[in-house]
Amino acid sequence: MNLTVRGIGRLLTMTAGVHHDAALVVRHGRVAWAGPGRDLPAGAPEQVLEAGGACVVPGFVDAHTHLVYAGVRRDEFVARLAGESYDGGGIRTTVEATRAASTELLVDLAAQRASSALAHGTTTMEVKTGYGLSPEHELRLLDAVRELAGRTPIHVEPTYLGAHVVPAGADRRTYVAEVIATIPEAARRGARWCDVFCDRGVFTVDEARQILLAARESGLGLRLHAEEIAPTGAAGLAAELGCASADHLEHVTPADARAMASAGVVGVLLPTVTLSLRSQAWGHAAVLREAGVELALATDCNPGTSWCESMPFAIQLACLAMGLSVEEAFRAATRGAASSLRLADRGHLGPGAAGDLVVLDAEHEADIVAHLGAAAVGRTVVGGVPVG
Amino acid sequence: MNLTVRGIGRLLTMTAGVHHDAALVVRHGRVAWAGPGRDLPAGAPEQVLEAGGACVVPGFVDAHTHLVYAGVRRDEFVARLAGESYDGGGIRTTVEATRAASTELLVDLAAQRASSALAHGTTTMEVKTGYGLSPEHELRLLDAVRELAGRTPIHVEPTYLGAHVVPAGADRRTYVAEVIATIPEAARRGARWCDVFCDRGVFTVDEARQILLAARESGLGLRLHAEEIAPTGAAGLAAELGCASADHLEHVTPADARAMASAGVVGVLLPTVTLSLRSQAWGHAAVLREAGVELALATDCNPGTSWCESMPFAIQLACLAMGLSVEEAFRAATRGAASSLRLADRGHLGPGAAGDLVVLDAEHEADIVAHLGAAAVGRTVVGGVPVG
Repeated sequence: MNLTVRGIGRLLTMTAGVHHDAALVVRHGRVAWAGPGRDLPAGAPEQVLEAGGACVVPGFVDAHTHLVYAGVRRDEFVARLAGESYDGGGIRTTVEATRAASTELLVDLAAQRASSALAHGTTTMEVKTGYGLSPEHELRLLDAVRELAGRTPIHVEPTYLGAHVVPAGADRRTYVAEVIATIPEAARRGARWCDVFCDRGVFTVDEARQILLAARESGLGLRLHAEEIAPTGAAGLAAELGCASADHLEHVTPADARAMASAGVVGVLLPTVTLSLRSQAWGHAAVLREAGVELALATDCNPGTSWCESMPFAIQLACLAMGLSVEEAFRAATRGAASSLRLADRGHLGPGAAGDLVVLDAEHEADIVAHLGAAAVGRTVVGGVPVG
Repeated sequence: MNLTVRGIGRLLTMTAGVHHDAALVVRHGRVAWAGPGRDLPAGAPEQVLEAGGACVVPGFVDAHTHLVYAGVRRDEFVARLAGESYDGGGIRTTVEATRAASTELLVDLAAQRASSALAHGTTTMEVKTGYGLSPEHELRLLDAVRELAGRTPIHVEPTYLGAHVVPAGADRRTYVAEVIATIPEAARRGARWCDVFCDRGVFTVDEARQILLAARESGLGLRLHAEEIAPTGAAGLAAELGCASADHLEHVTPADARAMASAGVVGVLLPTVTLSLRSQAWGHAAVLREAGVELALATDCNPGTSWCESMPFAIQLACLAMGLSVEEAFRAATRGAASSLRLADRGHLGPGAAGDLVVLDAEHEADIVAHLGAAAVGRTVVGGVPVG
């Protein structure tokens, strides 16, 4: 819980500037001091981590994952590389495998993925349900997320995504009513957020509005899968309801982006999805930036459209494919993502922030973007404890 | 030198089919047997490597690298992300740093990069000079490549690239004459190949022809940097001269691609360059495939336009960005790349081939493409010896 990190070549605090030849002190799990190494307060530290001149950044915040699932979708992936298009139907494949798996197995699989994410520097992670698609199975997935949270050092933010897709054979009005009826119990089982996949072929803007209004009544924060497959006005809905985040946004319009900015909706970019789907949808980051939307990054870790636990890879693609600057990308992966989860004490290393940080395997954060295919993280620290 | 690999879930030989539940025997550094595990010849093996159900592929062949250099080009990289264009001028920055470095340092730096490549599964690697740009310095770089070859288990193919760029302040006719005059000594110092950066702003087709014809007289094989920055007809020259490879090819025309195919010129794709340069030049792979050109993959490892030692990352981008199928990409990274180096006994695991192989960290090669940001290689074996 108490740790002094010394020999930091370059320290990005995100809220209190960049320090060179710096040090940082964590006490009782929180940042107590950060600054030039020569000004390090006296007193024998309990534990010392030597950064060896490396660059240190806040622990990455992964603002959008579907970490709890079973099964593989290799055939769908190989087919897509052979030129077939993706319409979201593949989710049902994962639903079958997930329903068939024991809760114990689901937690084990998710914990393995979390362990990989931790090694890639993730210290806070949003985790959605959505592969249960019945009250019973969705609530079981929330139990799995809660168990996961107890098994990983990563801070987990659980999201109820009963409205991921209409289950095969179900009546959609009945299913929407079922999703809404389950919300209070989802909140009791630990959900902090409610999300809806609002897109062509999935849930309509009206259906999403009904669900999210009900979620707000139960005290849940609101998130929205918006404008991924086609423009539907979902980003406008996110602005209307004041959602904490609208995610994907490949087809967002400039007007809806401005509405998002006015309403304080954070735009969550998922560049690994664009790469996985070969969609070449790279332009929306510029639309959002132009409108003044606060940007966040996430992996969207899921078995169909983004098998990825690596925030450094998301950062790399955000720069090289979406056109973010190095500074914008690191901010989106830390402060921006924390902002999308309304976590004021995460995603930065100012005084009082969570003692979550990453010692990069580089002396400058730009090298993480430039060095392709290489490991990015030397050490991950959570709450002042080196964990990976 | 003698090794039995057992428990191979899936064995891609590239020349003798795909075996399931397979085994492979290396004797005296060469593949002696490969097939279903139940048919494994009797006899006590000297050393056993258990693959644990993983997929095994031939060691990767990196057909194009500039591994020997000193210095970093971080500022240029950050500037490019801010929207500036690349015209090859950055090479001169590396030339200055490389000339200033001792040969010992150059070999150390290259050996570190080779070690990283080995961990990523590379077992054969082409290495170019080109950051010396004077007879003295270019020959010193060939010495460094030879020393590197003695220090890494990777099989190194040395290439003389005196014609990388016209040195600052030099008269271009004088410099071309100097490059040509140096070729016989380059051959004596171990160069097996000669390459020219033939492009707009670098060397013309006529200059490249002069240099390559001289190289052929000295017994060197021919390679060519072609059509990267602008269409100049360099790919047509590669066909005319029967070069072993033409590399980059972002601007190749269908007609020149057909000429390459007829002449047996292998097309070396460098997808990490397209990503690094943010050029969105992804379409040429389809042009080359349509023309029937044999495809190879490479990292182009260099400090300015592709800081990358990872062939699995090149494979991933070749599929997800360039549109190769998983099968095409793995073939290009093994058999195709070996073909571009005219190495009949590498890039495959048929009887008699070099005992160079990679135990992937996956049960199927498609997972290496699908799993973004993840480590791809469990174990690298060179000549029957597990080395990484």
